[in-house]
Amino acid sequence: MDTAFEQQVRNMAAAMRFPEPVYVTRPNLPPLDTVTGMLAAAWERQWLTNDGALHRQLEDELVRLLEVPHLSLFCNGTIALLTALEALSLENGEVITTAFTFPATVNVLHWHRLRPVFCDIRPDTYNLDPAGIEALIGPDTKAILPVHVYGTPCDVNAINDIADKHGLPVIYDAAHAFGVRLRGESVLGHGNLSMLSFHATKVFTTAEGGALVTQDPELHRRTCLLKNFGITGEESVEAPGLNGKMNEMQAALGLAQLAGLDANTDKRRCLDGIYRRLLKEEPGLVLLDLPSDVEPNYAYFPVRVREDAFGMSRNTLYNALKAFNIQCRKYFHPLCSTNPWCRLETGALPHSEAAASEVLCLPIYGTLPESWAETIGTIIRSLGALARA
Amino acid sequence: MDTAFEQQVRNMAAAMRFPEPVYVTRPNLPPLDTVTGMLAAAWERQWLTNDGALHRQLEDELVRLLEVPHLSLFCNGTIALLTALEALSLENGEVITTAFTFPATVNVLHWHRLRPVFCDIRPDTYNLDPAGIEALIGPDTKAILPVHVYGTPCDVNAINDIADKHGLPVIYDAAHAFGVRLRGESVLGHGNLSMLSFHATKVFTTAEGGALVTQDPELHRRTCLLKNFGITGEESVEAPGLNGKMNEMQAALGLAQLAGLDANTDKRRCLDGIYRRLLKEEPGLVLLDLPSDVEPNYAYFPVRVREDAFGMSRNTLYNALKAFNIQCRKYFHPLCSTNPWCRLETGALPHSEAAASEVLCLPIYGTLPESWAETIGTIIRSLGALARA
Repeated sequence: MDTAFEQQVRNMAAAMRFPEPVYVTRPNLPPLDTVTGMLAAAWERQWLTNDGALHRQLEDELVRLLEVPHLSLFCNGTIALLTALEALSLENGEVITTAFTFPATVNVLHWHRLRPVFCDIRPDTYNLDPAGIEALIGPDTKAILPVHVYGTPCDVNAINDIADKHGLPVIYDAAHAFGVRLRGESVLGHGNLSMLSFHATKVFTTAEGGALVTQDPELHRRTCLLKNFGITGEESVEAPGLNGKMNEMQAALGLAQLAGLDANTDKRRCLDGIYRRLLKEEPGLVLLDLPSDVEPNYAYFPVRVREDAFGMSRNTLYNALKAFNIQCRKYFHPLCSTNPWCRLETGALPHSEAAASEVLCLPIYGTLPESWAETIGTIIRSLGALARA
Repeated sequence: MDTAFEQQVRNMAAAMRFPEPVYVTRPNLPPLDTVTGMLAAAWERQWLTNDGALHRQLEDELVRLLEVPHLSLFCNGTIALLTALEALSLENGEVITTAFTFPATVNVLHWHRLRPVFCDIRPDTYNLDPAGIEALIGPDTKAILPVHVYGTPCDVNAINDIADKHGLPVIYDAAHAFGVRLRGESVLGHGNLSMLSFHATKVFTTAEGGALVTQDPELHRRTCLLKNFGITGEESVEAPGLNGKMNEMQAALGLAQLAGLDANTDKRRCLDGIYRRLLKEEPGLVLLDLPSDVEPNYAYFPVRVREDAFGMSRNTLYNALKAFNIQCRKYFHPLCSTNPWCRLETGALPHSEAAASEVLCLPIYGTLPESWAETIGTIIRSLGALARA
């Protein structure tokens, strides 16, 4: 297929194409020297993992920075979430969650023989709609697993009320929510456990990595135990734990990043502002709201593309931007509910399905030049004008 | 309790105590500069994980070095083993395995709702006794999970025959067996899958890390899929995978170590020789045989302490050596069969129980000075003489 529109896009791209790919994100890389300095100390100690000095220091620093009482570092966020479910002894039942998320959220349920029951999302925040949760609670419901999608806090009070009423634990997938604050406090203070991801695509990274946060000292003890084989001493094993440990190299990368975190957030805020300025009045584009009671982390810049008003679909825009060497991502398409191992007799998920087909995440990361964000926003506007012409 | 013997040990230790702790192992650390050089390239690429260049290079190098057809790197060996069971679709049944192993081997079964059925070991090799396996096979048996304990190859032919006869898959826990060859070929060529560990305590390390090895291209494809969320493309998810990925920092550490591996093995062989020379004729000490058809990796130096003949028990020797600042390890005590979540109506495991109470692993690692091994061997002989006096 080679339409007149595609030809026009190609002509435009010939003039404005980025010389190298613009990725949706790039890792937050601290000066390598800082990392190397810490590694030199680890080499000196001859200690690479197993509750090393850097691991301990990073746990301490993150507890302070995130203002949470207990935090346990993991090799990655998925293994942290897997461990969270075990720490709560969940199995053989149903977990109410969202289909509008990265596959990990739902996949971990499979490994615990838990069945996902999908609740639809709110069309404005992309988070679980508490109004839909209660109708899905049944005798087999074991827990609620909401996701702070794009870092926007869920409706934590409503979810908390429902969980309390039905005696259900809540595990937040906070993979996107590092540093996010709600009404002046860490969003990680809600639910029984929150999982953070420190994957290379996240605002704070340890290459791979993650953490579990809890307010409950006993649950914290249990997560620490379960990530280290359940070992409590040289001759005692208390629980059937796995290995979820973060190593010293990961911890060094994390520690080296702390000094630059505020600057990284400032830069992301600035990029977010550029996109908002350029796109907020563009017909058919809906930007994610920044609620006044939230301190965001600007981890993602999702744009919703309403085909009728914008003039082209999200998929067409995605492909058109590729012609400019701009690699956006369709977070989160396909919906997890469409996975073959998730086929469940759930009701339709109209808001989730619409979001999955309409949302595009634009490039945003600390080293993205502001001029590039300007150009990307301008290209999107030009494409819209072209499509509507 | 303060016996005359303890007083004598203290007097001896006052004269011969190591000024710093001698650990059972220390990580094999390549020059930090070599690691840093590779990290600089990763920084340049801004690529920290997700099938990065270093990850690919390490997979290629290990395939060549270990002479195996397919190898998939993991964040650690335990997650690799967990993934191996999923790759074979094992669940809700029994797995025949050994209780004389590190907790990880048996703990992963719990996460798949598989029940361990413990088979006793051979008293000479500490590996599963094939003669005992067949009697344990029943309608619920799903697989056989042997461990190449201390790197000594299991009786792979006998196990293979039993597995073939009963149509059971075999997963080898080869955590100790990096580089071990049997009859001129890699020991990893046996069974459906073999799991390697690259933990800091292993002869080859990526701080944390591990791998799955298989001869079966389809099984390899499935393990690669399952370690990356089951993702097969930007818009397709084929299986409910977890995150088992190794990151670029781990891969850099691995790559930087390859050049020194032979020298490390040479050094371990030398230390092994020193211990053997000093201890082989010591009454009541039984050393692990090095079969002539095996190329070992000298990862461990287990000594079996027969209390009657040596004059003191393994536990007493362990404590006495601590007085000299020598930190040996009681691998593998307690037996996994004694874990509360493993209570099964298995028969007694006399050989496993004896090994768990009699084996002590002595310090062995590439940077252990030969003179220290001489001293350790001499101290053990002196302690034996003292106990028998």
